[in-house]
Amino acid sequence: MNSQTIAFQGEHGAYSELAAYELFGDQIITLPCQTFEDVFQEVESAKSDLGLVPVENSLAGSIHRNYDLMLRHDLHIVAEYHLRVIHCLLALPGTQLEQVKKVHSHPQALAQCESNLARMGIEEVAEADTAGSARLVREMGNQISAALASRRAADVYQLQILVEHMEDNPANYTRFLAISKEQLAIVDPEERDYKTSVVFNLANKPGALFKALSVFALRDIDLTKIESRPIQGQLWEYMFYVDFVGHAEQTNCQRALVHLAELAPILRTLGSYPRHYLDKP
Amino acid sequence: MNSQTIAFQGEHGAYSELAAYELFGDQIITLPCQTFEDVFQEVESAKSDLGLVPVENSLAGSIHRNYDLMLRHDLHIVAEYHLRVIHCLLALPGTQLEQVKKVHSHPQALAQCESNLARMGIEEVAEADTAGSARLVREMGNQISAALASRRAADVYQLQILVEHMEDNPANYTRFLAISKEQLAIVDPEERDYKTSVVFNLANKPGALFKALSVFALRDIDLTKIESRPIQGQLWEYMFYVDFVGHAEQTNCQRALVHLAELAPILRTLGSYPRHYLDKP
Repeated sequence: MNSQTIAFQGEHGAYSELAAYELFGDQIITLPCQTFEDVFQEVESAKSDLGLVPVENSLAGSIHRNYDLMLRHDLHIVAEYHLRVIHCLLALPGTQLEQVKKVHSHPQALAQCESNLARMGIEEVAEADTAGSARLVREMGNQISAALASRRAADVYQLQILVEHMEDNPANYTRFLAISKEQLAIVDPEERDYKTSVVFNLANKPGALFKALSVFALRDIDLTKIESRPIQGQLWEYMFYVDFVGHAEQTNCQRALVHLAELAPILRTLGSYPRHYLDKP
Repeated sequence: MNSQTIAFQGEHGAYSELAAYELFGDQIITLPCQTFEDVFQEVESAKSDLGLVPVENSLAGSIHRNYDLMLRHDLHIVAEYHLRVIHCLLALPGTQLEQVKKVHSHPQALAQCESNLARMGIEEVAEADTAGSARLVREMGNQISAALASRRAADVYQLQILVEHMEDNPANYTRFLAISKEQLAIVDPEERDYKTSVVFNLANKPGALFKALSVFALRDIDLTKIESRPIQGQLWEYMFYVDFVGHAEQTNCQRALVHLAELAPILRTLGSYPRHYLDKP
């Protein structure tokens, strides 16, 4: 059997690549892409079997860009994965913590470790991404420089993990969605542990959202996410992103979506996929 | 009359400072703070009259951090402002566009100008923030370096605007909220052009959100934003952020909030404030 190829945005050692290995196992081939758009194109052109993109971070919020790309490309969500974000302090092997004077990383990672870095008296240096910072520390070859990046970046760039948990807030995780050209067929119609993601718009009048949500509530379908956002270029018109529990092929979900289509001028089912719990409840 | 002091995160020339001047006029005194937490503390300790923080960017998504801080501090939202984000290419006076080889900015600003920068063949250099990049270009004093930052940063660091609109997508705006120790009293109870922001949680069972939204729908109160997010440290429990049209002191809104409190174990009214339209509809 051939290995699956998974496209991700960033360079080797990025959090997206770590999520791909955790979700799909060690046998995959990962394909680094410069932009999120490139990830979608790799999948659309069938050069990669799947793409894995972040859509939400528990501290920073949603990544609208990737929802936009889902609307523009005819692909399907086939899996979700919640990655716990553990920022490691990485340096050349043999470095002592006391030697480190500067830490390189993406501004968001630096911000998420702000208190710990201040306490340790380490100066922050902004870079374009976390994995690239690890590569930079390897290239600079001195022991005053460290990077904040994933533990995978330590393997890739042969760095030592000086501190494993640098993040100030442990409730830091990122939700990833896997995208594919093929829809995921339902395995067991009775199985409840699926989620479905849909996006729709509504007439801008009071109560429109309430009616839209009634199609789920009337059928006891549980929502796990809802988010409104302005439509680009049409201010004060909104798109809604909703995730609900169930597979779009299950009868009650099918009926809810037919009902929703009566109310929503635009409705796209982005995919149905097995539900992933970060901590099994 | 003394000038109002407005705290913001970033250094002089930041987009937040630009938003403060556009919202409150030129007579204010702006106070740069290192972190968002510092902005809240400046207001809480009454060292600043108001704080102005970003909560949502149309391309990047919500900034959850600032909603968290609103829950942790006993302050009130008294104004909203939608700033159109115009990334300018800034360089030393006398620089020709052809001379520019490198552009410094925050990774998000660089990403939002990616296509234009690629077309112009300019190399990207990540920095911690946009205004700091403008300061850096001033300090470096050479003509091969430019910054992506606000036009205000051009004034502050005496740089020349080489290109005014570098952003790839013109529908790029950031929503700011002004926070204060004092609540904003209603001026005219009949006036409809207020918005109110509330945050609440709900029991995690099907239909709970539907019932919560019914308190608005049953009273013809229009929602302008809804967002769910996991509660930090309590996975699979959600908080909801809702903005609706009306002032919390208006009778129908008051009744809706009393009704909502029956359903929501936690309910905080973050503030009522005049509605701001980016383009008057």
